[in-house]
Amino acid sequence: MTAYQELETRFRRVNALGEAAGVLSWDMSVMMPPGGAEARAEQLAALKVTAHSLMTDPAIGELLDRARGEDGPNEDGQGAWRQANLREMRRLWLHANAVPSDLVEALSKACSTSEMVWRKARPASDFKSVQPQLQEVLTLIRRKAEAKASALGLSLYDGLLDQYEPGGRSGRIDQMFDALARFLPPFLEKAMEAQARAPKPLPPPGPFPAAEQRALGERLMQAIGFDFAHGRLDESAHPFTGGVPDDVRITTRYDEEDFTRGLMGVLHETGHALYERGLPPAWRLQPVGEARGMALHESQSLLMEMQACRSLAFVDYAAPLMRAAFGGAGPAWEADNLHRLYTRVEPGFIRVDADEVTYPAHVILRYRLEKAMIADDLALGDLPGAWNDGMKSLLGIVPPDDRLGCLQDIHWYDGAWGYFPTYTLGALAAAQLYAAARRADRSIVPGIRRGDFGPLLAWLKANVHAKGSLMTTDELLSEATGEPLSDKAFRAHLKARYLDGDG
Amino acid sequence: MTAYQELETRFRRVNALGEAAGVLSWDMSVMMPPGGAEARAEQLAALKVTAHSLMTDPAIGELLDRARGEDGPNEDGQGAWRQANLREMRRLWLHANAVPSDLVEALSKACSTSEMVWRKARPASDFKSVQPQLQEVLTLIRRKAEAKASALGLSLYDGLLDQYEPGGRSGRIDQMFDALARFLPPFLEKAMEAQARAPKPLPPPGPFPAAEQRALGERLMQAIGFDFAHGRLDESAHPFTGGVPDDVRITTRYDEEDFTRGLMGVLHETGHALYERGLPPAWRLQPVGEARGMALHESQSLLMEMQACRSLAFVDYAAPLMRAAFGGAGPAWEADNLHRLYTRVEPGFIRVDADEVTYPAHVILRYRLEKAMIADDLALGDLPGAWNDGMKSLLGIVPPDDRLGCLQDIHWYDGAWGYFPTYTLGALAAAQLYAAARRADRSIVPGIRRGDFGPLLAWLKANVHAKGSLMTTDELLSEATGEPLSDKAFRAHLKARYLDGDG
Repeated sequence: MTAYQELETRFRRVNALGEAAGVLSWDMSVMMPPGGAEARAEQLAALKVTAHSLMTDPAIGELLDRARGEDGPNEDGQGAWRQANLREMRRLWLHANAVPSDLVEALSKACSTSEMVWRKARPASDFKSVQPQLQEVLTLIRRKAEAKASALGLSLYDGLLDQYEPGGRSGRIDQMFDALARFLPPFLEKAMEAQARAPKPLPPPGPFPAAEQRALGERLMQAIGFDFAHGRLDESAHPFTGGVPDDVRITTRYDEEDFTRGLMGVLHETGHALYERGLPPAWRLQPVGEARGMALHESQSLLMEMQACRSLAFVDYAAPLMRAAFGGAGPAWEADNLHRLYTRVEPGFIRVDADEVTYPAHVILRYRLEKAMIADDLALGDLPGAWNDGMKSLLGIVPPDDRLGCLQDIHWYDGAWGYFPTYTLGALAAAQLYAAARRADRSIVPGIRRGDFGPLLAWLKANVHAKGSLMTTDELLSEATGEPLSDKAFRAHLKARYLDGDG
Repeated sequence: MTAYQELETRFRRVNALGEAAGVLSWDMSVMMPPGGAEARAEQLAALKVTAHSLMTDPAIGELLDRARGEDGPNEDGQGAWRQANLREMRRLWLHANAVPSDLVEALSKACSTSEMVWRKARPASDFKSVQPQLQEVLTLIRRKAEAKASALGLSLYDGLLDQYEPGGRSGRIDQMFDALARFLPPFLEKAMEAQARAPKPLPPPGPFPAAEQRALGERLMQAIGFDFAHGRLDESAHPFTGGVPDDVRITTRYDEEDFTRGLMGVLHETGHALYERGLPPAWRLQPVGEARGMALHESQSLLMEMQACRSLAFVDYAAPLMRAAFGGAGPAWEADNLHRLYTRVEPGFIRVDADEVTYPAHVILRYRLEKAMIADDLALGDLPGAWNDGMKSLLGIVPPDDRLGCLQDIHWYDGAWGYFPTYTLGALAAAQLYAAARRADRSIVPGIRRGDFGPLLAWLKANVHAKGSLMTTDELLSEATGEPLSDKAFRAHLKARYLDGDG
């Protein structure tokens, strides 16, 4: 066995254990009774610490060095994939070795505990009740950031960010986000003026039974290309995509007074799911076979939800299915009205319900706050106040309680610090990819109007999904769209949809 | 840290990985879409091989030797538990080290594959289609048996049996089973004559919607003491108890034409679940904190299902709930009739539907066949024929196809060879324990008649559940009932119920 082959065997095992943890995390959010929490935290901690000890086996470092010197075969044309796999193995190895085992285990337990407390604190709007658990998470996250920063030669924040967005750096994000923070407020004003000149959208009258919402969601998922032989749709408090590429599991929430949000949630997660399903099957359980990073992952969900499924073309197709699902009739159920509803712009408190124009403000707020907390410039006790100040300055509104404020998202409570900026990086990438796809294949939009997502999915699969982690995010975007990530296509998209009334 | 403490830490991790595998196995049977099978097999194999490599770390052998020489503290009165824990650690270590890693991994994959093929072969009654996968399992199981037999100084069969029933030996089983095989046929004849003199039981008229069956099952589970904050009830092709002690998950099947079988299945699995829930919380994830073996485990399910819940006392309590659940009225719904239905004796093809009088014949058949296959005295291609011959000789009937014959049980296809005899050992132990419990607490039967299982559960918890693996099966039975395992109480129970009309 060559050193490279030995590495493939070892990473295969580590990633299979990671998949096991993924399924257990899904179960924890979707199926597990509350009394199972402590045992589950211990199971997940055991998996993490075991995978970590496999990754920090000194033999891996030696194998990586030996593999670098090996002349890999290339008769099968897979030499570039193996080289990229080796590069990703080294990156993951650097990350894993930066953090000591006891910290990995402590963090895993602290996150499980904090998440369970948060599940009760959020509906009670009781930040104080989860503050001690969150402080424990933050303290450990800061230790993790210090360890990664020192090992990788990065800033504290970038040490965390790099786990989610390989190569992502806060310097570049600061520039893009500062520019967006300047562009968006005047744009929002213009968009709302344009909106005020159009008829006010009528909300379809409910109630909408969860079972019918679910059936409609499944129908649309199938139209988009989701294969239920390789996945599931369930419910959870915070919608997410879990499972593994060959068994990808999405969740949503059903509000029986308003089906529109839950449905768009399903379409959003379907975008994530199709990325996972489309990853290169020949590279399952290898680092190069994984999704490229969270910015591209979010680009796939936002491309599906925001770019494709809020377009007039899609609503033209879906409106009759919605009417049939709920027995709807009348002007509220016309495609034009539903489209106005689905592209309505309005500042609000909740990130996951935000429209695409105000969404970046939510992300910029969280990004700035978590950077400040990591840098110890903001104490946790001051988070609720700082949150509210930020909302006021960015969107002009102040949440009446922490349930609608700093308790709304699972991320910090679950240990995902340095993750938030990837949402808006994803929104920029989504606009850029969708514009390129439509330029490359003129049949995409007419297809969507018929409920045929085949052409869109074929382009995404070839240009994004099947590439795995072969290239960097910017290389992939350059190959697929002609240029690295920028906010140009996102601005053009907003202008077309919200000022020019184009789709 | 003492050597003993270091062992506790190591076994804690191994057992947490085992719990993770348990939840993933539950998910595989209950939630997983078919396309997830290959990835799941790989996840389970990675978990098994990882746990196995932790157990075969040479350091464990050294720690076991050092711990044997340590003077353990006993101020807390837990010294006997720690000694027993050490004894169980050594037993598990001997088992694990007997089998090489590559065989563990190969067997795990072969079983996952074989089980998935069996799920299609069974409804199609197509033994040939799963024979190659089953042959692969058998070949590897025989290698495992050889490895264990040689390491533990046992026969091939006992090397496998000992995994499920620590200390169980086929010599003793042969004696008990041969005696039962002589006792039962004439007894069955008498029981059927007695039955023929009573009114023929009327089956309550259906259909019985699955949702109502489920609600009734949950109601009775709660009465018996199942805590839904620490468990779930779901559906699967083959009912089982899975999950972990603090999150114990049982499954059943619903037949909308006949609610009685699914309901007794629920009560059976509830008995297993209560054993798991009642294991000593101070010893979670330690070998001594685990259930004592499969014979005692089955004794808890059979005590609940056969001894308690088919008694007239229980049916008196449950009959009104059954009527209310399905809107039933008339003679078929009277307690006397339902009791006759629940104690009906009749030779049949399917083990899991068998009454307690004919059940041992099903087990004796499988025990003899698997012993012959392990010993290479019976080729797999001859299994369907040998099965049918055995059924004819033991119960006087021949299955019309393999779906009702050698394809009916998951066990062999899933790698559980050496497991079957524990069902009947459990039936003997159930009768022995239930008789002792009623002698010790006269309020048990009147409690059951009111739907109050508190007294029974308290006795079981104190005498069986909370003992974990502190003692051997025979020691535990001697302490709880005054004598080691025998078939005396089982015969007395059969005679009382089926010949004397007593409960």
